[in-house]
Parts: sequence; structure tokens; C-alpha cells
Amino acid sequence: MNLPIVIIGSGFASYQLIKTIRRTNNDCPIHVFTNDSGDDYNKPDLSHVFSKQQSPEEVVTLSGGDFAEQYNVILHRQTWVESIDTENQVITANGKQYAYGKLVLATGSQTFIPPFHGDGCGDILTLNSLKEFAGIQQKVLESKKVLVVGGGLIGTELAMDLANAGKMVILVEPNTHLLANMVPDFISLPLEKACKEKGITVNLSDCVQAINKQEQGYRVTTSNGHSYYVDCVISAAGLKPNTKLATEANLMVNRGIVVDLNLQTSANNIYALGDCAEIEGKVMAYLQPILLSANALAKTLLGTDTALSLSNMMVKVKTPNYPIQLAGNTSIDIERWTVDIDVQGLCARAYNANNQLTGFVVTNERVKNAFPLFRELNTTN
Amino acid sequence: MNLPIVIIGSGFASYQLIKTIRRTNNDCPIHVFTNDSGDDYNKPDLSHVFSKQQSPEEVVTLSGGDFAEQYNVILHRQTWVESIDTENQVITANGKQYAYGKLVLATGSQTFIPPFHGDGCGDILTLNSLKEFAGIQQKVLESKKVLVVGGGLIGTELAMDLANAGKMVILVEPNTHLLANMVPDFISLPLEKACKEKGITVNLSDCVQAINKQEQGYRVTTSNGHSYYVDCVISAAGLKPNTKLATEANLMVNRGIVVDLNLQTSANNIYALGDCAEIEGKVMAYLQPILLSANALAKTLLGTDTALSLSNMMVKVKTPNYPIQLAGNTSIDIERWTVDIDVQGLCARAYNANNQLTGFVVTNERVKNAFPLFRELNTTN
Repeated sequence: MNLPIVIIGSGFASYQLIKTIRRTNNDCPIHVFTNDSGDDYNKPDLSHVFSKQQSPEEVVTLSGGDFAEQYNVILHRQTWVESIDTENQVITANGKQYAYGKLVLATGSQTFIPPFHGDGCGDILTLNSLKEFAGIQQKVLESKKVLVVGGGLIGTELAMDLANAGKMVILVEPNTHLLANMVPDFISLPLEKACKEKGITVNLSDCVQAINKQEQGYRVTTSNGHSYYVDCVISAAGLKPNTKLATEANLMVNRGIVVDLNLQTSANNIYALGDCAEIEGKVMAYLQPILLSANALAKTLLGTDTALSLSNMMVKVKTPNYPIQLAGNTSIDIERWTVDIDVQGLCARAYNANNQLTGFVVTNERVKNAFPLFRELNTTN
Repeated sequence: MNLPIVIIGSGFASYQLIKTIRRTNNDCPIHVFTNDSGDDYNKPDLSHVFSKQQSPEEVVTLSGGDFAEQYNVILHRQTWVESIDTENQVITANGKQYAYGKLVLATGSQTFIPPFHGDGCGDILTLNSLKEFAGIQQKVLESKKVLVVGGGLIGTELAMDLANAGKMVILVEPNTHLLANMVPDFISLPLEKACKEKGITVNLSDCVQAINKQEQGYRVTTSNGHSYYVDCVISAAGLKPNTKLATEANLMVNRGIVVDLNLQTSANNIYALGDCAEIEGKVMAYLQPILLSANALAKTLLGTDTALSLSNMMVKVKTPNYPIQLAGNTSIDIERWTVDIDVQGLCARAYNANNQLTGFVVTNERVKNAFPLFRELNTTN
């Protein structure tokens, strides 16, 4: 008997993997276990649901049932996987056992909520999945004033989307710059300016300290003594990989589920990809690493061991008032930058001490130069 | 009889002219008429008097009397020139007539004070001369919170100096950027950041509307609805050339006293230089244009007609937390910029549509590259 590929999770990584497998193989049995509806949606779309006034239903591209039919998978919806028996290659879900040939963990991540003080902490909203979007949509729609915790990629995208949706937005970030550790000052400062021009209050070098319920809404106080009265608080202070199942099955887990470049975990025939995986010490919750991971893992699962190429993945920052794309190393041990600026935007190349191109950042209209630069980067590295 | 060179004004331009003349000629008679003490001081020093805790006396390099003796000039102190008779080449001062061979107007400028509302407008301070510094020093020393009107060169320098002197500073500027029309965004944004890091409240795209006296200090309100309670308000909203004498003498006056490249006014044997002069449509109240003007005019006055070379004057922005130097055209019809950035700072070259270098900006440690770049700029233009 041909034991199935079993995938736990039905998020972006899981479904990309399935779509990639089905491009070359329509027959191998695939089971998907998910604790939600298994609807297919394009997760990056969550970055502009408020400005585009989309409902959760509109973001769905295929219902779970349609997806299962179209891609020939057996979908176990609203099903909790309870445990993994790595020795016998069996999982238990809703009390029943299922054998696997290959098991893929695509359990995703949860939004990290820092430990704030105050009685309003339990009401902090998050937006890391369609399900979460469905849960918070009404509350956000009704809010006039929103505080976003975290000025990284997701927080900044979200803040700009909310501002473009007409909300008054306050963005609080402990670092001195937006997208800190991701882009240099000369990129984050114009981005900050673009945020402010959209009316966003950008509060850097500051931390939320307490969130307290008011008669209406919340009072948020910060370390620097600011006080904001808002209708809701959304946390985008980073992601926490979902590793519980893996830990309980004694897989090697660090920040994420540790995998090698073949995306294999420390156990035989168990793989992980997406937000839950830690590849070479890094959790890469970005679109492109997941696409590349899905490509490599599909081949491996179908019999051709394929290592993920970690060369220079591209990241898009979906901030329409100041769009950014970057690739390679743009933050660590950069010796110098050369930058071209014109009316179309900015194109910045990062060089290391050996004068090697290590990464680049392009903005505005210049994002169309991203692919030629990407090839240049991959040639020189 | 050898008619004297008569100079009206004893500011930086006047005294630079005298020093330059005396380098090659110690004998020609020079009369200086000034309505103040005629003390010599280095005007750019006013940009850091507060952080260096200097008194007006300490800024003086030579008293008026010592200056007159050292440079062999006849100094008419505390003397108001009432009129110029261009036909007979005679001026009237304190009711007496003085003939001139050549007359130089170095009447300087006054700080422009925009027409605000409120009963506190009469108390707005300015800092455009040693005399003004002497007049406001005590008031500023006693102030904890200072509002500076204008985020151009002088306002930004002043705001940073006051912040470095421990004051709480609010800087209000109608433009979207500091040093607007002088440097591009990618220079003004880090400068803005440096200002904020010194604790300065930088309020851009906003205008002071009213200044009203309070029991202590003033309440300043802005167009955007901000309200600041401050101990004093200093205006650095631009300079207004002192042109009254010239106008009454029927010289051609536009924004400043109109001069040609020989610094000659529309009248025979009458010249103008410094903040009061308008050269090719521009009033250039910067150090280097004045030095170059003094060099050219000294030769002309001594008999060798010498035109001012308008090629690429260098401007220093004395903001010690983010020092800037620039030259050439860095703001009009720039097609593109190429920028090198490293730990030492930023070096930006501006090119026009014909791919010609038109100007440059350097920051931080890179200001030491200013002179090589300056030569490059003068070679290519």
C-alpha cells in the first residue's frame, strides 16, 4: 500500500506545497489535517483587506471543499492533530490514527503578544490568518482609532493599510527605525515620512506598557509616557512558530521546528515548511522563502531529494505609499552602500568589506528593477 | 584730493572687505559708518553661542576702536546715515556731509518676522547680529522651552544649538522638510532624525498662527491646531535685506539692492555686498558668497575691475549632530543623484538631464571630502 503524504495545516505554505506537487503528480495520496475550514486564500492579501474593504469571504479563492476536489486531496477539516508517533509513522487526530509515508508540518505561527500590563490585554487583536481576520473584521471596521504594536514588516504594512482605510493609526515600535534590522536608515526614514503623510502617528523608541479598558475603547500607555485613547489594539510584534506538536513528538525545536536544507526535521520522513520551520537558524515568514521551500519540498516528497537554495530571497514590503523590495543581506556587516535616486525612486546596492554585492533595496517605481538586480546578486554570490 | 572709500555697515561683509583691501593696500582712506559699536566678530559663531555658553563680549574679536586702529579706517560709530546724494557723491550722516570716491552699501539684513496674530508678537526674538544676541541672551538663558520659527539653514542650526544647550526646543516649519529648497529628502530626513534625537520637536507642514502672552511666557498656536507653551519665541523665518537707504537714493532695488557681477549698483561708484545685495536675482546670505564678494570687490575698489565668479559656492550647515556641506545646484532640475553611504556618512552627487555634475552634498565625516568634490564640480562646469 502506498502510504499517503500527510500535511498538518492548511495555510499558505501547505497549499503552495500541494499546488506544486500537483503540477507534476496528480495521483499520490495527500491528506490534509486542519483545525479550521481549510479554505484557500492568498495570505499576502491580508496586508490590504481594510483599504480594499474586503470581507473574509472575498479573500477566499477556493472553499476547502473545492480545493480538496480541485487538487485531489483528502481534507480533514476542523480536526485537531493530537500527537505524532514518529517510530510507527502514525498521527492521531480527533482520536483516530492515520499512517503517513511522509509527514509535513505546516503548522504556521501565532502572533507574539508581548506581556503588557492592564485589563485590556486580553482584547488585543491579531491578523495572522483568514480566521483571525474574520474574528476581528467587525471590531476594526467599527474602530476610528487603532493602535498597532510593532513597526516591522507586518506592523508597518498593516498601519498603512488601516490609514488608507481612513482610520487614525498610532504605530508604536521599540526600535529607532521602522523595519529595523531589515533596511538601512535611508530607506526607513522616507517610509516613516510616507506613514506620517498618511496621518499615522509613528512613535519610535517607545514600548507599549499597559492597555486599560475605558468606558469606550482602551487607554494605551507607553514607556515614554505617552497616552493614547483608541478603539482597538492590534499586535504585530512578531510571530511565534507553532511548535507544540513537534516538541511533544521530541523533534528538535529551537525557535521554530529545526529543519535542514531538505526541510527535513530531526525525525525520519517528517518535514516542516512555512512560518513554523527554522532553516539554518532563521524563521522566514515571508512569501518567497515559502514558495521556494514548497518547490524544493515537492520534489523531495516525490522522490528526488532537493535542497532549498537559500540564495537571496526577495522580500516585498507592501506599503503602497512607499513600496519596497529587497533581497540578500541588507543589514549585517554592510561596509558601504551605493545608491541611485531619481524621480522613479531609489535603488541601493549593499557591499561587504570585500567589495562584494551582498544585497539590494529598491523603492517606488524602481521595484521593477528588482529582478535584474536579483539576477546580478545571484551571479555575484 | 583722494576721496575715501565709504562703507555703510560694520557687519561681516563690511569687515571682510576692509581686511581684504588692507592685505594689499594700507593707505587708501576708508570711512566706515555704523549705527552700532562697530565691534568685529565672526558672525557664523552666532550659530553656537548657546551651546558654547558664550557671552556677547566673548564673541567679539576686536572692539570697534581696535579694529579701526588695526585696519587704519575712520570709524563713525553709533552714526545713522540719513541719505545718499548719488549725483554729488556725498552722504549725510548725523546731519553732516561726507564725500565719497566709492561708496559701498553693506547694510545687511533684518530677520523677517511673519505677521502672526496675538499680543505676544512684539516680543519675538531674533538673532541676526551681535547686537541682537546681546539683546536676547539673558531672555534665552532664562528660558527652558524655546520655539523657533523656521526650519531653514539658520532656524535648524539655532534649534540644534539651543537643544545642545539643554533647552526644550520646538521647531515649526511650513515646508514638508527641513532645509527645503536646499537639500533633497534623503539629506533632510536624517537631519530631522538627528534633531529629534536631541529632543527637538520638529513640526513640519505647519505654521505659527498666533502668539499670546500668558502669565509666564507665551502660548503659540499653529494652523494644524498645535498649542505650545514656551518661554520665548525666536524667528528665523528668513532675512529681509536692508534696502531703505538705497531705495531713497533711487538705486535699483528688487528683493535686495540689485548689483551686477562687479557688485556695482545702478548708480555710478556705488557698490553693495553681503546680505543686502541681490546678485543675479539671488540674495545669498551665506559665508562663502560674502567672502568671494569681498575678494572681488576689494580688487575693483583698488582699481582693477573684477567680476564675482558665481561658480558653485560652498555652504556649510552648522548642525554638529549631522553636519552638512553642499555646493552647486542641489535643488533645481536635478535629474538623478548618485550617493555613496558608509559609516563616515553620505556623499551625494547631483546630475542634470545632460548627465553633468551640478552639485553635491556631503555629511558627517564626509565633509572632509568637500574640497576635492568642489574642485571636481568646478572642473566639470
